[in-house]
Amino acid sequence: MSHTFSVIGLNHGHINGQVQGLLKTGDWSIKHVYAAEPDLLEAFTTKFTDVTVAESEAQVLEDDSELIASASINADRGPLAVRALEAGKHFFVDKPCVTTLKDLEVIKAAVEATGKKWFAFFGEMVLSAEVEWVREELRKGNLGEPVHFMGLGPHSLRIDSRPDWMFNGRQYGGILNDIASHQMAQFCYWMDQTPIPQFSRVGNLYHPERPEFQDFGDASFGGSKGATGYLRVDWFTPAGLPSWGDIKQQLITTEAYIEHRKNLDIGDAPDYKAKLIVTRSDKETEVVDLRGQKAPFFERLTKDVEDGTETAIPFELGYTASKAIVEVQQQAITLEGIKKP
Amino acid sequence: MSHTFSVIGLNHGHINGQVQGLLKTGDWSIKHVYAAEPDLLEAFTTKFTDVTVAESEAQVLEDDSELIASASINADRGPLAVRALEAGKHFFVDKPCVTTLKDLEVIKAAVEATGKKWFAFFGEMVLSAEVEWVREELRKGNLGEPVHFMGLGPHSLRIDSRPDWMFNGRQYGGILNDIASHQMAQFCYWMDQTPIPQFSRVGNLYHPERPEFQDFGDASFGGSKGATGYLRVDWFTPAGLPSWGDIKQQLITTEAYIEHRKNLDIGDAPDYKAKLIVTRSDKETEVVDLRGQKAPFFERLTKDVEDGTETAIPFELGYTASKAIVEVQQQAITLEGIKKP
Repeated sequence: MSHTFSVIGLNHGHINGQVQGLLKTGDWSIKHVYAAEPDLLEAFTTKFTDVTVAESEAQVLEDDSELIASASINADRGPLAVRALEAGKHFFVDKPCVTTLKDLEVIKAAVEATGKKWFAFFGEMVLSAEVEWVREELRKGNLGEPVHFMGLGPHSLRIDSRPDWMFNGRQYGGILNDIASHQMAQFCYWMDQTPIPQFSRVGNLYHPERPEFQDFGDASFGGSKGATGYLRVDWFTPAGLPSWGDIKQQLITTEAYIEHRKNLDIGDAPDYKAKLIVTRSDKETEVVDLRGQKAPFFERLTKDVEDGTETAIPFELGYTASKAIVEVQQQAITLEGIKKP
Repeated sequence: MSHTFSVIGLNHGHINGQVQGLLKTGDWSIKHVYAAEPDLLEAFTTKFTDVTVAESEAQVLEDDSELIASASINADRGPLAVRALEAGKHFFVDKPCVTTLKDLEVIKAAVEATGKKWFAFFGEMVLSAEVEWVREELRKGNLGEPVHFMGLGPHSLRIDSRPDWMFNGRQYGGILNDIASHQMAQFCYWMDQTPIPQFSRVGNLYHPERPEFQDFGDASFGGSKGATGYLRVDWFTPAGLPSWGDIKQQLITTEAYIEHRKNLDIGDAPDYKAKLIVTRSDKETEVVDLRGQKAPFFERLTKDVEDGTETAIPFELGYTASKAIVEVQQQAITLEGIKKP
């Protein structure tokens, strides 16, 4: 079957992965792109030469494509989702999906009213074969009961390369909501329980030249079945790291201890880009070798569009994770900056 | 120079490391041991054949040894410290050093009144060459300003092997105060700032057969110069781990990102027991190889006894860390247990 999609909003480079993923399935072709920024449009059309530049957002919403993919400015993603859904299109949005709870509720109502799909793109999670492996083991009951999830998402800032909207509090929506939406989604997916915020903190610890920026955040939360969670994100990764961040997560259960080094194995031989280390009560530590494998996220998304299923990223998962991370962001205490000597 | 010490309290196996460390310097000989438990005394005297069993604590306090080493029941360590100091002896105590703030203040007064030393034994920290290396780099200004410290202290429980006092709330003093005193001391030592408790939680998540036990705890805190800290401890390490726990810490600074795998390098070749991985803003990730080295803790302790210096574990460090971790323990919210399916 052949499907078409269009693109609105190129403000984060994640859009390239979204578009490439759809095109690579062989089931999708790209129609229009619209963005307000000429430089972003030029880079995009150089990369994706089959796309037609639309003159307005309205032109895209009125075309005959089935789905809109977007990585617009964080705060614009909620309202755009509703316009896309109401135009009769599925909406495939980079994380963070919204910056306010109100936006999220309006999306929920629009999904219910239109019957269209709203796909949240938590790229660190949905493409990972290791994440799927752990989820399956949990589902089969092979890992006991979940006790604790820890997600670490340090990032390199390269401050001069970032657009101004990242340093505007309202447009950016805060560090926890932005980066740690990955970790919150991961908690929901593995633990299969609704997060209950307990304590969170954010701060601009060392970038006073960008007063609305947040360069550090972390949060403690519970789960509705008694598990515990913690996440931490920051923009302090030094330039020497051969990656944009040492993304890691740990899972503690009543039967196992798992560490998932997500995009590099720091300090070790570079042949494992992602490394999954599993220790059980009845078995010595093993490295589960899934090198070269990817989770079939884009194939599932296509199937969901065709069959009305919820296999790629169920609405409930994207909604619950987004709601929890906006709450955690909003409830955070604000830290003072570091005292320079 | 030749020194003598005695031992009171064998309730945790850490006492073996304390005694071996002193004897190995060649500067110390052991005189008396007293413990209320015949089985612990028998095991100890089998290992240390030069020791004389005392008939009472009073006999030890009245002997001519200069120092008392102790790993008694957690709640007994504070009052015993004061009795030892007032008997004119230095006191060398396993962590946790106290279980109440009042005990700590009485110790402080006794140290001031007697001029004797109170040495806190945070074994995970003071013996580590890697910890010293990082501390020196920080002190030289080679790592910028500290931003965040994370300390993880998962432990294997082997519940049937543990003495009853560990499951008595008052005698044990709580999981954060017990295990995470290591992590809190480490924060104080590296960051060189006083911890300010912000949020902590403890719980008996999955051991209802021991109702006063706590099998999980974590805490968020700040530092007096604006750094941030987080620590987590638990008793869920599965039997398959080839160690009693995957102790890890991370340090984020304005210039560097450091991970210290303290007692095994999980999932990797076993030649690194402790691995220190350092990434800087101007240098690619490197593994700092300090294999086979130990920090000269016991040599420093001997020097402190001889010269009145504070090189092994300054009183202020042991006091500040102990105070902070008791506060964190006392302020913790109590979590509900995990809902069994």
